[in-house]
Amino acid sequence: MRDAILVLNAGSSSIKFAIFELPAGAGADTSRMPSRQPLFSGQIDGIGADGVSTRLKVRDAAGKTMTDQPLDAAPADGAGQHRHALDCLLGWLDANDEGIRMRAVGHRVVHGGEKYARPIHLDAAICKELAELIPLAPLHQPHNLSAIHAVSALLPKLPQVACFDTAFHCTQPAIARQFALPRAITAMGVRRYGFHGISYEYIAATLPELLGTEAAEGRIIVAHLGNGASMCAMRERRSVATTMGFSSLDGLVMGTRSGNLDPGVLLYLMDNLSMDSQALARLLYRESGLLGVSGISQDMRTLLASPRPEAQEAIELFCYRVRREIGSLSAALGGLDALVFTGGIGEHAAPVREKICAEMRWLGVAMDAEANATASGAGNVRLSRPDAAVQVLVMPTNEEWMIARHTAGMLG
Amino acid sequence: MRDAILVLNAGSSSIKFAIFELPAGAGADTSRMPSRQPLFSGQIDGIGADGVSTRLKVRDAAGKTMTDQPLDAAPADGAGQHRHALDCLLGWLDANDEGIRMRAVGHRVVHGGEKYARPIHLDAAICKELAELIPLAPLHQPHNLSAIHAVSALLPKLPQVACFDTAFHCTQPAIARQFALPRAITAMGVRRYGFHGISYEYIAATLPELLGTEAAEGRIIVAHLGNGASMCAMRERRSVATTMGFSSLDGLVMGTRSGNLDPGVLLYLMDNLSMDSQALARLLYRESGLLGVSGISQDMRTLLASPRPEAQEAIELFCYRVRREIGSLSAALGGLDALVFTGGIGEHAAPVREKICAEMRWLGVAMDAEANATASGAGNVRLSRPDAAVQVLVMPTNEEWMIARHTAGMLG
Repeated sequence: MRDAILVLNAGSSSIKFAIFELPAGAGADTSRMPSRQPLFSGQIDGIGADGVSTRLKVRDAAGKTMTDQPLDAAPADGAGQHRHALDCLLGWLDANDEGIRMRAVGHRVVHGGEKYARPIHLDAAICKELAELIPLAPLHQPHNLSAIHAVSALLPKLPQVACFDTAFHCTQPAIARQFALPRAITAMGVRRYGFHGISYEYIAATLPELLGTEAAEGRIIVAHLGNGASMCAMRERRSVATTMGFSSLDGLVMGTRSGNLDPGVLLYLMDNLSMDSQALARLLYRESGLLGVSGISQDMRTLLASPRPEAQEAIELFCYRVRREIGSLSAALGGLDALVFTGGIGEHAAPVREKICAEMRWLGVAMDAEANATASGAGNVRLSRPDAAVQVLVMPTNEEWMIARHTAGMLG
Repeated sequence: MRDAILVLNAGSSSIKFAIFELPAGAGADTSRMPSRQPLFSGQIDGIGADGVSTRLKVRDAAGKTMTDQPLDAAPADGAGQHRHALDCLLGWLDANDEGIRMRAVGHRVVHGGEKYARPIHLDAAICKELAELIPLAPLHQPHNLSAIHAVSALLPKLPQVACFDTAFHCTQPAIARQFALPRAITAMGVRRYGFHGISYEYIAATLPELLGTEAAEGRIIVAHLGNGASMCAMRERRSVATTMGFSSLDGLVMGTRSGNLDPGVLLYLMDNLSMDSQALARLLYRESGLLGVSGISQDMRTLLASPRPEAQEAIELFCYRVRREIGSLSAALGGLDALVFTGGIGEHAAPVREKICAEMRWLGVAMDAEANATASGAGNVRLSRPDAAVQVLVMPTNEEWMIARHTAGMLG
């Protein structure tokens, strides 16, 4: 039997999972970390979606597809869509796992509020507290909690750990987290939390391997550019500021999200188009961003391949806003020593990295065009010229491993 | 008889005015500009405010108060509060003007939409177009138009010119003006317009006197810091980007306005505090900013004089957000050659300038502490050390003169 950690990232219609092998005897001793690459990974898609069949996809350690199969519809017994999906996954694992013994489950949980600055062992009392944070992340937190409750029901004895997307930003100075709102509203928790913290934590943990221990402590901006996108300014590998704020809407242009937006626009849309909060949420979360600007796609790959000017417009706006925010985050850091690209777009879209960096010479950015063009999919790569003042890197993120590592560390 | 231009800046409860003498023969020849200091200036306060008496204050060319008198209540004949107030002003001028002949009226008008990139002679058709822009600036545009209609009624033959707060920003590249919203919403005019343009235009026109003609064409950020506050990035003395967006809410922390704010905060306040657009507008325009954060005052002078930590918190947040936006605007410019402070806070609050600049050394800012401490009220002053890479200046703005100058220029 091999011990393993199951990592779950549950959204409204999908559950992503990864299973990491644990060296024998692993416990509180974090030097015994799970392997960086998972034994299995995959996702269950189409959960609760009308007219779309739920499918289970599993890849092996080498990334090869092991299965891609439709699942039976969830029984109408009220046990919940997430529970049914997880039940199917556990069933598949039982039949195919070649002797894996699950030791714990690590969950990605979007919101830890002001209280949870690090991962935590879940129990009923903590789940209740996390449910109270649903108004702060209504689109994500309920699904994270559904998966936790499903595991409790299916495997009641298995330890569960929550890793929070907000936790990494708890080191920020208060001034970076505050809106200029009345104190009573700030006291209600209306402040900047920031997200993608597990990804930033992974990059922060891995930076010394690339930059050396001293340079890794410098003024660094990490650009996590994916369908959701944000950037984080780090000094001494701790978060100093980030572009996402109270919600995951703020900051950069995203696949379908607007990024930052004059609050007066919402007042205008309420008064002149009679939009209510539901209509505004649909507009700003699902119909804006690259999709809204291009009218073509939310997918950067599709836009990069398109000859249409609307696609170019969306790409240019995405890159312009990244550059503006790099300037703003550099001000929070008092300068810039290194810029790290990660996330789907950051790791794979060389033309986007090039457009961003081409107009950043004023900050000391100087790219090696060939290194950039060939970096995609090549792991950790340096893109900057050797004599450049600012080092530019691509680093594939690994949030699942970060969660597995925390979960393993809490087993002691 | 001396020819003169009347400049009006009409708000919801006040009309500010200034009267500039015109050299004999002034017309299309803009070398014959009105004098930079007005013959008279002042304001009518308390217009339409319940329980507050309307007062007329007039100062002479030296700034000495000539009158500060209550006005009779407006007659209830439907002619409008602004018309009554202007009628009182014109009556005072007739009795006290020592032979001034009004040649034209120049109005500050907040919004020129996408069409008006320069000042324009007003007629009925244009007033109708400007009224169509009211939804874009519901708190200001109606009052600007009231003053125009009042002058039309009281002095029907007098030429009237509108100068727009948005016009200076029309040179911005499209990318700086675009939100990441669906194309249909952008096409409705939901884009960044920017404001304080008349102030920026004045600074742009005056910069060569201080920096020399060549340096004035460089990468310059102008910080117009007052009760309303914004910054403008200029290259070749044209606007490249600005912090205010669609409305006057966006960007910096202001006296009572929030500045930029995650749009998710508005969704949260709608869903959890049942706030409608009126309640949100009151919160974000009148109860936020320095007032909301400090809980003490919207006035920077009061906060600077206060020993309370809440006052310091508000000042620190104000300065932090200025620094972040200087970074962002520097990215739009590709670097920074000069930083200009103007507006009430920018011209007079030396500790605020110091706090902003102290953490901008990374950009090449190096202040002369003594020059900064003694600059307030001293006119155009250089604050940077002679060897600094970025020149820092204080320049008192003069929006009224800019309007008078445009108005005189259109008399030909």
